[in-house]
Amino acid sequence: MLRPYLAVKACEAVGGREEDVLPAAAALEFLHTFTLIHDDIIDNDQTRRGVPTVHSRWGIPVAILAGDLLFANVYRTVLGGGLPPERTIRVLSLITEATVKLCEGQMLDITFPNLQEVEEEEYLKMIRWKTSYLFKTAAEVGGVAGGGTEEQIAALGSFADLSGVGFQIVDDVLGLTADERKLGKPVGSDIREGKKTLPVIHALNNASQGQKAVIWRAIGGNVTQEEILAARDLIVSLGSVEYTKRKARGYVEAAMKRLDVIPASPAKGSLIQLCNLLVLREF
Amino acid sequence: MLRPYLAVKACEAVGGREEDVLPAAAALEFLHTFTLIHDDIIDNDQTRRGVPTVHSRWGIPVAILAGDLLFANVYRTVLGGGLPPERTIRVLSLITEATVKLCEGQMLDITFPNLQEVEEEEYLKMIRWKTSYLFKTAAEVGGVAGGGTEEQIAALGSFADLSGVGFQIVDDVLGLTADERKLGKPVGSDIREGKKTLPVIHALNNASQGQKAVIWRAIGGNVTQEEILAARDLIVSLGSVEYTKRKARGYVEAAMKRLDVIPASPAKGSLIQLCNLLVLREF
Repeated sequence: MLRPYLAVKACEAVGGREEDVLPAAAALEFLHTFTLIHDDIIDNDQTRRGVPTVHSRWGIPVAILAGDLLFANVYRTVLGGGLPPERTIRVLSLITEATVKLCEGQMLDITFPNLQEVEEEEYLKMIRWKTSYLFKTAAEVGGVAGGGTEEQIAALGSFADLSGVGFQIVDDVLGLTADERKLGKPVGSDIREGKKTLPVIHALNNASQGQKAVIWRAIGGNVTQEEILAARDLIVSLGSVEYTKRKARGYVEAAMKRLDVIPASPAKGSLIQLCNLLVLREF
Repeated sequence: MLRPYLAVKACEAVGGREEDVLPAAAALEFLHTFTLIHDDIIDNDQTRRGVPTVHSRWGIPVAILAGDLLFANVYRTVLGGGLPPERTIRVLSLITEATVKLCEGQMLDITFPNLQEVEEEEYLKMIRWKTSYLFKTAAEVGGVAGGGTEEQIAALGSFADLSGVGFQIVDDVLGLTADERKLGKPVGSDIREGKKTLPVIHALNNASQGQKAVIWRAIGGNVTQEEILAARDLIVSLGSVEYTKRKARGYVEAAMKRLDVIPASPAKGSLIQLCNLLVLREF
């Protein structure tokens, strides 16, 4: 429930009360969950959070409808949330624009060109749309519900956006370096699935022809765990993991700076702590 | 574009201007289209309106996302539609509740018990949720956008709801009796697809054991066109088509009565004409 947490703390950080933002905060989690249900159909993923996905358990038709119903419930919850009309409308607009971006990000992911053609910039755009835009929206929703100034709302949004990019980049690193028990899946499974992650993109852009071949063989699928680990070690030796960590730290620092316009409070402290937790895990 | 038409004429009938309701009217068509795209995936229909369905042309992932994006666009369009905040919120609430009902109606359809167990009442509930609820919502949206009184808004909604039921029932009759050229599909294809229509439900409830067997054989699928036509003739001879037509006329009459509280105007005339067109086609 990262998104509701961001909304609640952002609301409190501008002087609002938790109860003002709770319905909208719940709606953000509904929105996130709706997109997960539909994304799992699209990616044909069989499990999530250790349990069967909706479509693998109940079938695609039920999963499509469950997602649609949850999406409608996003609006129902905000509309019945008791905010003044103008704030209700602003929150709904923020949530609607976030949904558009999420759909476009997922579409970009589906139609993403082959990994060899992916530039870092395109990758960052995609994770921005797929992940950090909803973080940004959650913080803005909190700022609006709490009655923050325009400057505060923009700062909170930017803070969450940059934190979200850092969060996603760190996930990419952990997929390569964390141990299997902590990760809940085999080390290097991102490589096996041909997932576009920043370390892989950086490595491919900095490898010799021979090194590229090793990475490409691993990405191609149908390989041994030894080949995966060889590619992983090569990516590390090319400095791509260090590069990615440095990048993540840069996003964190930029994120923190945005909070300068927010007065000190326990809620602001919670936001900073969350950012550290998300981005500096295991570093 | 029946739903936008209903919204525009309802708005005008309570003294509003067309331009006040146009964005919301467009949003209603987006909503209808979004549900069609997802329903076509669910029912695995290959064509609609004479062209390939979205998922058959672009694949299920793109069709899911296209529907989701269109759904987000429903809200985007109303939110940017220029109505005063209170009316915007009321229109969004109406649209949201309609979406919930549409999803629930579709779910009911998926999980509908076998035809032999279907009661007329359950059938009417399903078409109410799947079809006429959005008609009702369209008319109410028009009434709200046009600044109608509560009594007028309720009357317009009830008018459209009853017209919608009549419309769907007439569709059931036309599927049995209209000629192939007008219908765009073979006569009796509803029977072949095992579709739950009012004439079939009525016939099954009024047939002898032997007659039931004839109808069941046709519904079972994998039958000749002769067997379909024999079942069709039997359904007609059992009075089920007459019964259904009578039922539709009852809905039309009830619908018209609801408009008594709306003052005479060209827009009211258009609503009455639309109702006649929808329900009395081919009778």
